[in-house]
Amino acid sequence: MDLATVIGVFAGFGLITWAIVGGGSAAVFIDLPSILITVGGMIASTFIHFSLGQVLRIFGVVKKTLFYRLQGEQDLTQMMVNYAAVNRRDGALALEQHIQQVRDPFIIKGVQMLIDGQKEEAIEKQLALEIQYLQERHADGKKVLEFMGASAPAFGMIGTLIGLVQMLRTLDDPSKIGAGMAVALITTFYGALLANLVFLPLAGKLGIRSKKETMLREMVVEGLLSIVRGEGPTAVREKMQAFVSAQHRADLKPKV
Amino acid sequence: MDLATVIGVFAGFGLITWAIVGGGSAAVFIDLPSILITVGGMIASTFIHFSLGQVLRIFGVVKKTLFYRLQGEQDLTQMMVNYAAVNRRDGALALEQHIQQVRDPFIIKGVQMLIDGQKEEAIEKQLALEIQYLQERHADGKKVLEFMGASAPAFGMIGTLIGLVQMLRTLDDPSKIGAGMAVALITTFYGALLANLVFLPLAGKLGIRSKKETMLREMVVEGLLSIVRGEGPTAVREKMQAFVSAQHRADLKPKV
Amino acid sequence: MDLATVIGVFAGFGLITWAIVGGGSAAVFIDLPSILITVGGMIASTFIHFSLGQVLRIFGVVKKTLFYRLQGEQDLTQMMVNYAAVNRRDGALALEQHIQQVRDPFIIKGVQMLIDGQKEEAIEKQLALEIQYLQERHADGKKVLEFMGASAPAFGMIGTLIGLVQMLRTLDDPSKIGAGMAVALITTFYGALLANLVFLPLAGKLGIRSKKETMLREMVVEGLLSIVRGEGPTAVREKMQAFVSAQHRADLKPKV
Amino acid sequence: MDLATVIGVFAGFGLITWAIVGGGSAAVFIDLPSILITVGGMIASTFIHFSLGQVLRIFGVVKKTLFYRLQGEQDLTQMMVNYAAVNRRDGALALEQHIQQVRDPFIIKGVQMLIDGQKEEAIEKQLALEIQYLQERHADGKKVLEFMGASAPAFGMIGTLIGLVQMLRTLDDPSKIGAGMAVALITTFYGALLANLVFLPLAGKLGIRSKKETMLREMVVEGLLSIVRGEGPTAVREKMQAFVSAQHRADLKPKV
Amino acid sequence: MDLATVIGVFAGFGLITWAIVGGGSAAVFIDLPSILITVGGMIASTFIHFSLGQVLRIFGVVKKTLFYRLQGEQDLTQMMVNYAAVNRRDGALALEQHIQQVRDPFIIKGVQMLIDGQKEEAIEKQLALEIQYLQERHADGKKVLEFMGASAPAFGMIGTLIGLVQMLRTLDDPSKIGAGMAVALITTFYGALLANLVFLPLAGKLGIRSKKETMLREMVVEGLLSIVRGEGPTAVREKMQAFVSAQHRADLKPKV
Repeated sequence: MDLATVIGVFAGFGLITWAIVGGGSAAVFIDLPSILITVGGMIASTFIHFSLGQVLRIFGVVKKTLFYRLQGEQDLTQMMVNYAAVNRRDGALALEQHIQQVRDPFIIKGVQMLIDGQKEEAIEKQLALEIQYLQERHADGKKVLEFMGASAPAFGMIGTLIGLVQMLRTLDDPSKIGAGMAVALITTFYGALLANLVFLPLAGKLGIRSKKETMLREMVVEGLLSIVRGEGPTAVREKMQAFVSAQHRADLKPKV
Repeated sequence: MDLATVIGVFAGFGLITWAIVGGGSAAVFIDLPSILITVGGMIASTFIHFSLGQVLRIFGVVKKTLFYRLQGEQDLTQMMVNYAAVNRRDGALALEQHIQQVRDPFIIKGVQMLIDGQKEEAIEKQLALEIQYLQERHADGKKVLEFMGASAPAFGMIGTLIGLVQMLRTLDDPSKIGAGMAVALITTFYGALLANLVFLPLAGKLGIRSKKETMLREMVVEGLLSIVRGEGPTAVREKMQAFVSAQHRADLKPKV
Repeated sequence: MDLATVIGVFAGFGLITWAIVGGGSAAVFIDLPSILITVGGMIASTFIHFSLGQVLRIFGVVKKTLFYRLQGEQDLTQMMVNYAAVNRRDGALALEQHIQQVRDPFIIKGVQMLIDGQKEEAIEKQLALEIQYLQERHADGKKVLEFMGASAPAFGMIGTLIGLVQMLRTLDDPSKIGAGMAVALITTFYGALLANLVFLPLAGKLGIRSKKETMLREMVVEGLLSIVRGEGPTAVREKMQAFVSAQHRADLKPKV
Repeated sequence: MDLATVIGVFAGFGLITWAIVGGGSAAVFIDLPSILITVGGMIASTFIHFSLGQVLRIFGVVKKTLFYRLQGEQDLTQMMVNYAAVNRRDGALALEQHIQQVRDPFIIKGVQMLIDGQKEEAIEKQLALEIQYLQERHADGKKVLEFMGASAPAFGMIGTLIGLVQMLRTLDDPSKIGAGMAVALITTFYGALLANLVFLPLAGKLGIRSKKETMLREMVVEGLLSIVRGEGPTAVREKMQAFVSAQHRADLKPKV
Repeated sequence: MDLATVIGVFAGFGLITWAIVGGGSAAVFIDLPSILITVGGMIASTFIHFSLGQVLRIFGVVKKTLFYRLQGEQDLTQMMVNYAAVNRRDGALALEQHIQQVRDPFIIKGVQMLIDGQKEEAIEKQLALEIQYLQERHADGKKVLEFMGASAPAFGMIGTLIGLVQMLRTLDDPSKIGAGMAVALITTFYGALLANLVFLPLAGKLGIRSKKETMLREMVVEGLLSIVRGEGPTAVREKMQAFVSAQHRADLKPKV
């Protein structure tokens, strides 16, 4: 799981909880009807806005962003450098056994096309298409999260309006204004918290992840195409390290 | 009808209704003058902003977006693959009887031009123009809905201001402040609800629908042009499936 | 006058008036000092922002947008088709008497250049320049209206702040808070109403008008250039109807 | 000084003063600490945002925008037409005495380069660079003013928050709430007034001035280059009037 | 340290402190729990939004922006003019001893490549890449600061909501409303102050610094490439001064 996210989530919710508990009884801050209006209204408007597929896909996209580590530039370069050495020494078919333990379906697909003897153009086109689909999934997910970040405070305000109207309608006993206001404001609190501690930061992280993952995949494509052209480990390494800033370059050699 | 929209509309309005009814008498939330100010003001400003045609067309566009299912990629591909087979076997004229049961006027127009023996360029130009008109109708509709989504809360606020001024002007009896405020806030509630549960999500859905429908029509054009050039079912299928992500491709064959 | 605008203006101001009158005495809503602060402040800031010419031109632009009907596509096409027939039969000089009853200075200028025997390039360049000036006038007008739509609520708020400070400063008699607040809120009400029922919708209508008028003028240019090249009525009609969607095309013939 | 600005500034501040004085004692609206927080905070944040040079240059840019009239298109054209006549009749050196009374350093520089016998390309490049620097100064000034227009209301709100906290902290005597609130709101009033009557409109005027001044300078460059190429007064006039709309063209002849 | 920033920071915080202290006891404005909610919530959401590297890098970027002076255009030009003279007179190797006392790693890297006899294209490509990395670091830093500037007021509002709910929940003693409100508003005050006096102006300064530093580095690259091509001090000076406005040009000669 992404370290910064772990820190952020724990620190953020920890602080808010501490502030609430420290101020006396926390019970008033947990109000099921208020949660239902804010979260339910937000989900309802999200379903009206997007298609079913886009909404359901968001769980997978967020899970992957938070829990799956991307392979580092050096690991990917090392992997491709090894494949280049194997391809040169034993031919493309020998790569078959090396992709057994690979988990990334993108790399498996690319290497498989290489083993199948497909042409450079076909591999490039197919992998570029896969990258494009990845970007579209990420962009869709970012839009859904951003819409949720705008919708949650809106339904928080709608909940507060409902609470205020109900409270004001029966203003017989002025001493009850306070308690009524407190309950009415809870939905605004939920909406602001969800937007600013969950949905908007998550949409940002997804955008950063998308940029990073796209870069890594373009690096892999560059390496694979170099292997397809029959180039050796050194050429593959140089092509892939053009994506990496000078400080992070390493003098990788095949280890197979 | 679009499933996500059904879920969203029922869940959203259900939740709001439940919150209102659960809080006691719901009567205070149904106030005809408040509805008239918020909805009427919004409609009035929309009429001033847009032309009569643009405003009236919005009903048809929204109805189509919500209630007419688009044909799936596979259905469209299958249809064109069949037409390619018929065209090859029996000639273009034989297609006449196949388009009897088609409902989509775009496909009917395209196939009819094919039957009439029009040239590839003429068909491509005509259908590109039809797609452009479709996109303009959708873009117009999206703009109208977005303007309504901005206008509804504004007239909600205007209604609340009117209510507040009227209430404050005659502040003889402080015990009536509450009831006056409650009524004044109802228009703000209507405006926020209309914008966030109806107009803004609908504008989003229309945008997504427009993108999808454009893609499907471009797919049909690709298939039709392939048929016009006399290409067979396999070529037609490959051309059309270039629009579809790898996971959703199927090995379709003519079924005629 | 544009029908949608008529409906919008009457419905909008009618509704607001009805809501005000229905709530009791309407006198409190008509407050000359409040009008002066909101409208005057808005006009003052508009004068600081724009040049004198831009501000004064806005009246003409809005008047033309609301009260002058644009000629329809069919009328314009018919006119050019007739001119093409006259030009072919009797020569360009015979057009002199046909433009006597034309009111649109753009068409008069174009046909006059044609009669004067100017070259195709000169006519095209001159008319393109006229269209550009029209678009700049419209864009300037749109910017002025949008600035007014942002400035009116700001000065409404400034007026309310002045009223609040004056009221709170002398808060001896708590029973007068209500009346003071009511007066203070009137400027906010004026600002919101002006922005949302007048300036912002008008800016939108101006944008739509500009797009439409540009399209019609480009259509006329296309027709005129066709006539200059000595083409007949049929060619002129086809060139001009390329701007019109298929549903609205008509089989126009010269009627002279 | 720009007439529209004079009208706007006098009308705006006059109206606000009238509204304040008309409501009773104006003393409460003049509060030095409130001015210091709002204006001082705005200036402080502007210094943090921009470089010292950018902030100090703003005075000169605003002064020039408000107090220096730009020469009209006709004056500039007449001047260049005269120079073209002199250049043809007496040679470039004779222009030396004509630029004695010119005040605009841009024109002096251009004509001086012409007198020095510099090549067309060198003059064009140098003057284009000067125009670019002008635009950058204007764009910088616009950004500074826009930031001030956003910062003033923010520090107005910060001042009100300070005032509210101080007032609420010692809420022993409820009868003093009003006076405390009145003082607290003054900074919000200052911020809104400064932003909406001073900084935002001034930023707009600067943008309009920049566009106008750029156009006039490009006109001068066009004229000068025409003179350098040895073209006569008529050619110079035609080249420069291409920048002017048809209605404003004049049949200028050399008057030297 | 950047002079404008020093003035801004001291003036800004000085004014706010003066306003707080002048209004009586300042103790109420220093509330540790309020600082923790506002600052902590902002930091937490920033960690969720960005990657760990991006957040940690912000300190270095801000420190460099505020405390490291950029070398002036004249200094840089003088340095390159000297290097050009040395290179001409004694050859590239003689430059080795001149870069001993240079601190800017960018210049060291460029001159070292020159000494190593690398080709013009290689040097240009490598330095362009370094400039691009610099811009990306700055752009990342600007985004982090802007997000903090949006997040601080949001968590200020969340803190105020928590305080309001806690205060209203136990509204037994109306005389305590004031004190409770005062404490609740403190977080809003912190959020507004941090955003408007720290994060948003700093983001602006970073953007301006980035533009300036990029320009200076491109100037150095221009000078270095000129030296690599074996051009003399005069040519180097002219190439580099093309970046400087006419007023700031100096007639620099080699001083070695």
